Amino acid sequence: MSRGDSSPAGTTKRRAPGAEGLLETALKCFYRYGYAGTSVRQIASESDVTVAALYHHFSSKQEILFTIMRAAMESALDVVRSAHAQAGTDPADRLVALVDAMVRYHTRFQVEAFVGNSELRSLERDNRAAVVTLRDEFESLFDICILDGIEQGVFEVEEQMLSARAIIAMCIAVSTWYRKGGGLSPTEISSLYSGYALNLVGARRPASASP
Amino acid sequence: MSRGDSSPAGTTKRRAPGAEGLLETALKCFYRYGYAGTSVRQIASESDVTVAALYHHFSSKQEILFTIMRAAMESALDVVRSAHAQAGTDPADRLVALVDAMVRYHTRFQVEAFVGNSELRSLERDNRAAVVTLRDEFESLFDICILDGIEQGVFEVEEQMLSARAIIAMCIAVSTWYRKGGGLSPTEISSLYSGYALNLVGARRPASASP
Repeated sequence: MSRGDSSPAGTTKRRAPGAEGLLETALKCFYRYGYAGTSVRQIASESDVTVAALYHHFSSKQEILFTIMRAAMESALDVVRSAHAQAGTDPADRLVALVDAMVRYHTRFQVEAFVGNSELRSLERDNRAAVVTLRDEFESLFDICILDGIEQGVFEVEEQMLSARAIIAMCIAVSTWYRKGGGLSPTEISSLYSGYALNLVGARRPASASP
Repeated sequence: MSRGDSSPAGTTKRRAPGAEGLLETALKCFYRYGYAGTSVRQIASESDVTVAALYHHFSSKQEILFTIMRAAMESALDVVRSAHAQAGTDPADRLVALVDAMVRYHTRFQVEAFVGNSELRSLERDNRAAVVTLRDEFESLFDICILDGIEQGVFEVEEQMLSARAIIAMCIAVSTWYRKGGGLSPTEISSLYSGYALNLVGARRPASASP
């Protein structure tokens, strides 16, 4: 019954293995048909469990979506936060580390990224607010990094919050076109995108490759 | 029965006014519930027409989605192509014109952009290929502009196709956060994003504002 426990759509609370399998199936359904186009019955059926068994783990389809989206956002935030923490204090190094983490995450978790970006509309108000809070925290890492660079005189860019958003958007979009084994590797994309990001913020040094 | 004929989801072929109203309702439904989450019955009902009347205009829900997505992509392509044609030959001026057109389109047609980006999955093979062909043409305008800049020695950036994609992604993402009357105007966003794009491609002049 349990499959794919390595998914970032894992839960923060400890759950029975069956819940993980249901989350993975639900993620695939939301990716293919969207939230409104997926029924609880379908998630149960494709997971080879009864609807009653599904309700043993989750009270509603909304709880399933929220669990998936919160876990995906927490997982992305963890990756980015940890890369950032290891990058030291130089703003350019930190920006490269942030972009590298974003690009790697989005080449790896393309399905999660698609659902995370397309189904914010389907979250109920409080759930949406919780996910948006995580997303804001995420954005603020980029924001603060760019602001530090401006204050230290090593970046030169207007409206650092908007520039952070632009950089985040270009990294997220990698999830829409990246194909494993199809041209550039995640490492190559990361290196190029780090250069683009440093250029974008007007960094006072040649685009560097590795974080 | 007819409403909102000014929508970019207008058809390329001439249709009875009723078809325009149906397209606009369908666009709103796809935006809210996704393609799989929307039924033909629902589109007809929310348009105040019978299902039979809907089938008088469209043979299927797929035809409705394809009509919307092709029209939206053609409309974006027209806007971008025309801005590009008026911008002269200087690569920096052309890039600014392209970014300006993209930002303005995406502050204005946010719903079309969302459906266009999230429902490519729902197009049948030939329809998808037709839309992707338009998108490729779109991307190639950016691509060629950046390549010209590199060849003329005014831009300095690696992998121009990827840099084009990064710039397009940041412009498209404006549609996800822009709120009318909420902070920056489309003109201000366009000016800032033009600067970011020129920076990103390593343009050899200060970021200029207007196309």
